[in-house]
Amino acid sequence: MANDKKLVEAITAMEDDFAQWYTDVVKKAELIDYSSVRGCTIFRPAGYAIWENIQKKLDSRFKETGVENVYMPMFIPESLLQKEADHVEGFAPEVAWVTQGGLEPLQEKMAVRPTSETLFCEHYSHVVQSYRDLPKLYNQWCSVVRWEKTTRPFLRTMEFLWQEGHTAHATAEEAEARTEQMLNVYADFCEEVLAIPMIKGRKTDKEKFAGAEATYTIEALMHDGKALQSGTSHNFGDGFAKAFGIQYTDKNNKLQYAHQTSWGMTTRIIGAMIMVHGDNSGLVLPPRIAPTQIMIIPIMQKKEGVLEKAEELRQVLSKNFSVKVDDSDKNPGWKYSEQEMRGIPVRVECGPKDIEAGRCIVVRRDTREKYEVAFDEIETRMQEILDQMHNDMLERARTHRDAHTYEAKNYEEFKDIAENKPGFIKAMWCGDVACENKIKEELSVTSRCMPFAQEQISDTCVCCGKPAKKLVYWGKAY
Amino acid sequence: MANDKKLVEAITAMEDDFAQWYTDVVKKAELIDYSSVRGCTIFRPAGYAIWENIQKKLDSRFKETGVENVYMPMFIPESLLQKEADHVEGFAPEVAWVTQGGLEPLQEKMAVRPTSETLFCEHYSHVVQSYRDLPKLYNQWCSVVRWEKTTRPFLRTMEFLWQEGHTAHATAEEAEARTEQMLNVYADFCEEVLAIPMIKGRKTDKEKFAGAEATYTIEALMHDGKALQSGTSHNFGDGFAKAFGIQYTDKNNKLQYAHQTSWGMTTRIIGAMIMVHGDNSGLVLPPRIAPTQIMIIPIMQKKEGVLEKAEELRQVLSKNFSVKVDDSDKNPGWKYSEQEMRGIPVRVECGPKDIEAGRCIVVRRDTREKYEVAFDEIETRMQEILDQMHNDMLERARTHRDAHTYEAKNYEEFKDIAENKPGFIKAMWCGDVACENKIKEELSVTSRCMPFAQEQISDTCVCCGKPAKKLVYWGKAY
Repeated sequence: MANDKKLVEAITAMEDDFAQWYTDVVKKAELIDYSSVRGCTIFRPAGYAIWENIQKKLDSRFKETGVENVYMPMFIPESLLQKEADHVEGFAPEVAWVTQGGLEPLQEKMAVRPTSETLFCEHYSHVVQSYRDLPKLYNQWCSVVRWEKTTRPFLRTMEFLWQEGHTAHATAEEAEARTEQMLNVYADFCEEVLAIPMIKGRKTDKEKFAGAEATYTIEALMHDGKALQSGTSHNFGDGFAKAFGIQYTDKNNKLQYAHQTSWGMTTRIIGAMIMVHGDNSGLVLPPRIAPTQIMIIPIMQKKEGVLEKAEELRQVLSKNFSVKVDDSDKNPGWKYSEQEMRGIPVRVECGPKDIEAGRCIVVRRDTREKYEVAFDEIETRMQEILDQMHNDMLERARTHRDAHTYEAKNYEEFKDIAENKPGFIKAMWCGDVACENKIKEELSVTSRCMPFAQEQISDTCVCCGKPAKKLVYWGKAY
Repeated sequence: MANDKKLVEAITAMEDDFAQWYTDVVKKAELIDYSSVRGCTIFRPAGYAIWENIQKKLDSRFKETGVENVYMPMFIPESLLQKEADHVEGFAPEVAWVTQGGLEPLQEKMAVRPTSETLFCEHYSHVVQSYRDLPKLYNQWCSVVRWEKTTRPFLRTMEFLWQEGHTAHATAEEAEARTEQMLNVYADFCEEVLAIPMIKGRKTDKEKFAGAEATYTIEALMHDGKALQSGTSHNFGDGFAKAFGIQYTDKNNKLQYAHQTSWGMTTRIIGAMIMVHGDNSGLVLPPRIAPTQIMIIPIMQKKEGVLEKAEELRQVLSKNFSVKVDDSDKNPGWKYSEQEMRGIPVRVECGPKDIEAGRCIVVRRDTREKYEVAFDEIETRMQEILDQMHNDMLERARTHRDAHTYEAKNYEEFKDIAENKPGFIKAMWCGDVACENKIKEELSVTSRCMPFAQEQISDTCVCCGKPAKKLVYWGKAY
């Protein structure tokens, strides 16, 4: 059995070095590879298939709310990027610039899109004339580029994949409702599909998107106690509409500015899945997103009837699940290790004795619980086991998060938690950016969000002692 | 009814000016919009939804042959692009270069991918070690950039969407088989889904891909008699493997070079659909690719029960088709014109008299044939009508192509056809590039392909009179 251990031994234990554990899992589960392009990673089949599933499921949730997909150019002329002042100030330092096309220098350099507000706004200024043209509920799936100094697979890369929704509405109320609606779509998707519980809230002005009136966010807690911003939704008010001249005539024939939103989720959510659910044997994929949900591993596969039974099971299960049979010439122990490293939610073990007994063994990846399942019950039992696994993973993540969420009533408590207890810190805030800056500088902790579920845990700001305005979730973030 | 004509009048007749007709349709059917980014277009919802359907259907055909999707970075460092000599020579003149990242100039400039052979090769050199690692059958969906001087929507744009498949194999035979297999996937997809008949063949050396040993192509004939290269599949032999060091140990423990292929289809296929099937009322979408297949148009919709019946029909038809109801306050004639302009394959007209008679009227977009269909037969009849429409569209396109395919036995005949009869010209060729060049220069006609279905229509080259080696399809091309 010496072989069986190789895969496992190759990962660092998460207790020893969480960052190294993460890198090991990402490589060993064959999610990504590095290339000679600085700061960019290659999505290998196992990694890209996860993103394809996320796309498929998120996209259908978008479309249920009336969203339509479009595609905008990947380049933005410098003059267009500069039209909204806050926006360009926020993005200019991290833009990649195309300055040469073919053999000629360009007259105007072009940004490789870091985000596409400016292109959507220009288009809306063409196609929105009357209240009848509103709302516009557009989204695109693409990659964007931000020139980052330090990068980590999925979490921070120079190029990353995402979707960016951009909507235009007749009224401020509709824009606000859409901003909140899409945040809820993200939060529900993360809980119902990825088994990741989210804190929903609003970003402070310091942390909001460049050009937005308000940014809402969902924040998750990783296994190491760090926070990860997992999706954001922005209300732009009419700021971009004024900069780009997006106007419509209302029912009374009066000219009005449109109100806009944008919202995005990126491949970093794959990093969240890894860091919330993974363990020291590798990846643990939530059953509703796993590209392969079930790996059937025949035991003593050279014996008569074993591979045939495996194939029969595959066909039965394929009606409702994504299933593979590992009939390679590796030994079963090695196959188990591989299935575990790759995070395939369940494996089905089935050999001559099982066949004789009319049943197989189903093993859950997360808890390694084993179930004896009769062949004629496999379809319904499999659905139950995967649903139970999803619920348990969500519940464990929630329990872990709650156990690592602390309250601080004064700066001393806050400092003690920030330095010794990785996790979310709930503390009151006066609303002054000076306190946010001080906390960030002294304790390396940032405001994650002002949760929608506000509580009053004390009357004074945890930093300056002045009257408190808001409860804030603080944390160290990826 | 003055209103009804507006949409229609806005398009140029194809007989008057085919190029202008094309541009009008693309704009009026709301497929694309222009932006301030030179040479790039915006895919509007109606345009992008077509591409989404193409992706979905083509992708599942790829996956049935064992292909897996991946994602490679959009940038290629200059040194990597230069590794294969023919390849860089072919692409360098049309590359967009990133020279600045954030506020700093780059030490090495990076190409925005014009195609990704070099990245796939670098990756394969990492992950291919043994014969057990082969074949690798990878594909990616992405956009690429080629710095074109003149551009036309879908047909030639600086940035375009495509898929690029890249495979690595143990033997030359396997690579050749895959090259042909994927060309057949394209041709079948075009006939079975897009209703476009294709000529399959091999490109001459002059027209083949930069770095390929052999390029296969599918060529379609547009309504105006011009040819459109619609998909290509390349056999690279071991040329790239040698340049990038992609080696594996075979079963006898001997080091071997891999053999590679690549194959791609782009958004220009949407241009082909428009130019093969469209008419003077606008777009005609093949029923199996149309994002909306059926538009239900209620007649006298304010009368009791009309909208309810329309909604009931929508629900029944939605089980198997993509259906919408146009219940806007426009009049029916206007709605018909819009449905026709947008190329929606059938409309269902249904008013109080129809309801009383227990049936509705189904009108085909391509022929405007009308069918009285009883409500209780609508599901099966609709499937028949759409299938018939697909078959008829394919057949009409084939008939049109065959009627515009000419044979030339000598240069005089060739010249006469090239100057007077738009279409394919079948003529024999000696195999010498000098003849290809002369024909291109004097007659503005290029070799489209050497068809797999070879015939011997004369013994001598149509250009120089020397012994002929191959039958070639020639034509003026987009």
